[in-house]
Amino acid sequence: MTRVLLTGFEPFDGEALNPSWEAVRAAAAHPPEGLVLSTARLPCAFGASLDALREAVERTAPDVVLCVGQAGGRPDVTVERIAVNIDDARIPDNAGARPVDEPVVPGGPAAYFSTLPVKACVAAVRDAGLPASVSQTAGTFVCNHVFYGLMHLAATERPGLRGGFVHVPYAPGQVTDRALPSLPVPAAAEALCVIAVTAAGRTTDIRAEGGATH
Amino acid sequence: MTRVLLTGFEPFDGEALNPSWEAVRAAAAHPPEGLVLSTARLPCAFGASLDALREAVERTAPDVVLCVGQAGGRPDVTVERIAVNIDDARIPDNAGARPVDEPVVPGGPAAYFSTLPVKACVAAVRDAGLPASVSQTAGTFVCNHVFYGLMHLAATERPGLRGGFVHVPYAPGQVTDRALPSLPVPAAAEALCVIAVTAAGRTTDIRAEGGATH
Amino acid sequence: MTRVLLTGFEPFDGEALNPSWEAVRAAAAHPPEGLVLSTARLPCAFGASLDALREAVERTAPDVVLCVGQAGGRPDVTVERIAVNIDDARIPDNAGARPVDEPVVPGGPAAYFSTLPVKACVAAVRDAGLPASVSQTAGTFVCNHVFYGLMHLAATERPGLRGGFVHVPYAPGQVTDRALPSLPVPAAAEALCVIAVTAAGRTTDIRAEGGATH
Amino acid sequence: MTRVLLTGFEPFDGEALNPSWEAVRAAAAHPPEGLVLSTARLPCAFGASLDALREAVERTAPDVVLCVGQAGGRPDVTVERIAVNIDDARIPDNAGARPVDEPVVPGGPAAYFSTLPVKACVAAVRDAGLPASVSQTAGTFVCNHVFYGLMHLAATERPGLRGGFVHVPYAPGQVTDRALPSLPVPAAAEALCVIAVTAAGRTTDIRAEGGATH
Repeated sequence: MTRVLLTGFEPFDGEALNPSWEAVRAAAAHPPEGLVLSTARLPCAFGASLDALREAVERTAPDVVLCVGQAGGRPDVTVERIAVNIDDARIPDNAGARPVDEPVVPGGPAAYFSTLPVKACVAAVRDAGLPASVSQTAGTFVCNHVFYGLMHLAATERPGLRGGFVHVPYAPGQVTDRALPSLPVPAAAEALCVIAVTAAGRTTDIRAEGGATH
Repeated sequence: MTRVLLTGFEPFDGEALNPSWEAVRAAAAHPPEGLVLSTARLPCAFGASLDALREAVERTAPDVVLCVGQAGGRPDVTVERIAVNIDDARIPDNAGARPVDEPVVPGGPAAYFSTLPVKACVAAVRDAGLPASVSQTAGTFVCNHVFYGLMHLAATERPGLRGGFVHVPYAPGQVTDRALPSLPVPAAAEALCVIAVTAAGRTTDIRAEGGATH
Repeated sequence: MTRVLLTGFEPFDGEALNPSWEAVRAAAAHPPEGLVLSTARLPCAFGASLDALREAVERTAPDVVLCVGQAGGRPDVTVERIAVNIDDARIPDNAGARPVDEPVVPGGPAAYFSTLPVKACVAAVRDAGLPASVSQTAGTFVCNHVFYGLMHLAATERPGLRGGFVHVPYAPGQVTDRALPSLPVPAAAEALCVIAVTAAGRTTDIRAEGGATH
Repeated sequence: MTRVLLTGFEPFDGEALNPSWEAVRAAAAHPPEGLVLSTARLPCAFGASLDALREAVERTAPDVVLCVGQAGGRPDVTVERIAVNIDDARIPDNAGARPVDEPVVPGGPAAYFSTLPVKACVAAVRDAGLPASVSQTAGTFVCNHVFYGLMHLAATERPGLRGGFVHVPYAPGQVTDRALPSLPVPAAAEALCVIAVTAAGRTTDIRAEGGATH
C-alpha cells in the first residue's frame, strides 16, 4: 500500500470555494484501491501554507505528495513540471502578504523538477477521457511557493519522498457569468485519483512530448 | 403540457461525437416535468438539415423548438440572439458542400431574432450553477443555417411556433490533448432542460444586459 | 473621383484615445490617389452618433461611407458583415445611456448586410501585409448602432450610397501593461486606405471563404 | 561604452522570417547612444544554436547578452525570468532533432534566473508606449535552450557577463489570415533598444510586481 498525501487550498481572491480542495476531498471520499490517501487543506498564504504542509507530511509519512491548486482560466488539468525559487505576488495572499521577487527558500536552488512521472500522469488522465497537459510554470504565487517548498523538503530532509503539483480549472459554479473554462469537481477528483495511482505505481516516466515552443 | 422539440447534430469536422446530440439525448432521457419532449438528430449538411428539421416539426407539432449545436472552443452554454441569411462555410459540411456567401433562403430577410426569452434562459442556466451567456453570432455554417431556417419556417408557416438556438461546448473527451474548454454532457443536458423549461414557461424576456461592445 | 467619408469615434470606456479616430485622421492626412476623403469624429453615444453621421453624410455627399470603431482585444482589422437592429449596452455610453434590448430603428428590419465588397476588402488588406478577417458581429454597442443606422439611412434615403463598418484593434499604447493584442495606428490607417480604395473600385465582391462554424 | 550582443534566430516552423532576427537587425541599424551593439543570427537547432552563441560571445566579448526569439501568439514583448534545464520539443528543430526531456546541460542546475533587471526592462518598454510583461517560462524548445546555455556559460566561464532572453510577437505579415496577435518589427526593434539601454545602465532591478497566480 502506497501512502499518498493530497493537499488542496482554501479559497482565495474572493472566490467562495477552491476547486482544488473540493476535488481533493471528493477524491478522498472514494480512494483508489491500493492507496492510503490522506488529505490536508492548506491556507492560501506564503509561509503558513508550508508550515501546514510540513505538519501534514510529518503526521502522515507519505510516500508520494500531490499538492493541488486552482488555475483559474486554464481549460484542463495541468501537471506542473518545475517549481521556481521566487515569490512574486500579483495579488495579496489571504494573510495580506504580497512579496515581490523574494526567494521561497533563501539560498535554495533556482528550481526543482517535479519527481512525479509527469508525462505518464498526463497520459493517464487523457486515457480516462479527461483533458490534461504538462505545464511549464506554476506561476509565482502560493501554488508555486508550496510546490517549491515541498520539493525542497524532499530534497533536503525526506530523501525517499516523491512529489509534485497539479493545477485544476475553475469549477463551473465559479464562472457562471464569466465566459471562462471550467471543469466540474467530480471530473477533477477523478483526474487526481488517476494521477495518484499513476504516481504511486511508477518511479520512471514515459517518453512523450509535452513541451512548449515558448 | 408544452410540447418541446429538441434537435442536435451528428458529428462533423472529424469528431467522434457531437455533444449537442449527446446532450439532447440525455435531456430527453430525463425530461423536466410539465414538458413533452421530442428529439431529432439532424445531419450536419446544408439543405438536408433543414429537410430533417421540417419533418420533425411536422411530426411532433411542437410549441417550442430548441435547436442545439456544438461550438468548439466556447467555454459556456451560449443562447443565440440572431440568425443571419448567409451560408459561408469554412470547412465542407458532411455532404461535401461548401457554399460561400449564399443565402439560406433566397429573398428572405437578412436576419431573424430568436423568439426564445434569451436573457431569461441565460439567467436560468446560471442560477442552476452552470456557465452561460448570450451569443451575438451563431456563425455562418450549418448551425446558423438551421437556426435561420427554423425562424423562417416559424415566420412564414407556423405563426405560433417559438424557437431558437443554443450552442454547447466540446465534451471533455473531445479535447483531452487540445487545451480547449469543455463541458461534460450531463451538465450540457441539464442546461438544455433548464432552457426548455424557461422557454416553455414564459413568452416575454427579462430585462438583463447581455451585449457586447464589439 | 470617388467621394469617401471615413468616420471614427471619440474615446470611450476610460481610454485616452480611440484608435479608430486616430487611424481615420492619419488616413486622411495621406489620402490614396483617386479618392476624395472626408472625415467625421462621432461621439460614442447612442443617438448622438447617428445625428453626427447624418450631418456628415449630408455635408459631404459621399459615394461610400466607411465607419470605423475600436474592437479592444481583437488582433486584426475586421470588416463587419452585418449590422443588427438591437442596442444592448454592457457599459454606459459617453452620455451615460445604457439601453438594453432596444431597437436601433423601431420597426426597422432585423439586420442589414454591409454593401462593401467585404471579402475583397479583407483580401486587399492581407495583400498589403496586414492582418484582417471578416467579422460576423459588430456587437450591440455604439459601433453596431452606427453601422445599422448607416445602412438604414442608405436603404431608406440614399439609394446609391454604399457603406460598411470596420473594427481596428487597440493601439499599442493602450495595452502596454495588459497583454492584449494591438496594431499601431499607422498600420490601421494603411488598412483603412486599402479598404477605401477597394470599396471605391468595385461594387461586386470576390468569392472567398470568410465564414465561422459558430 | 557598454558592449551588448543581440542575437536573433533564423525562421522555423515553416515561417518565411523570424521577427526576432528582423528586430535585432533593425535595432543594430540604429543603435542607441552609449552602446556598442553587435549581433548574431543563430540557427534554430538544439546544440548548433549554442555553438553559434559561444562563438559570438568569444568574438565580441560583450558585457551584456540579450538573446531574442519569436513567441508566436503572445501579444506583447516578454522579458523572460528563468531558463530551465530541459529540452522537450513539440516540433522538430531546423536540423530535424526532437529531443524529449533531455537536459540542456547534463548535470547543470535545474534552472538559472536571468541576470538582466527584468522588471526595469519591462517598465522601460511600457514607458516607451509599447506592450511588455514578465514571462515565467521561455518554453522548452530552442529559445529556452539558448537562454539556459547562455546563463550556464556566464555562470561557469564568464563571471562578469550579464544576460537574458526576450520574446517578441509575430510580425503582422506572418499572421495576415490567422487572427493572432502581432507587433511590427520596428516596434519590436525599439523595444529591444530600450531593453538594451536599461540592461546596460543598471545592475539592480526595480521593485515592481510581475508575477502570475499560476
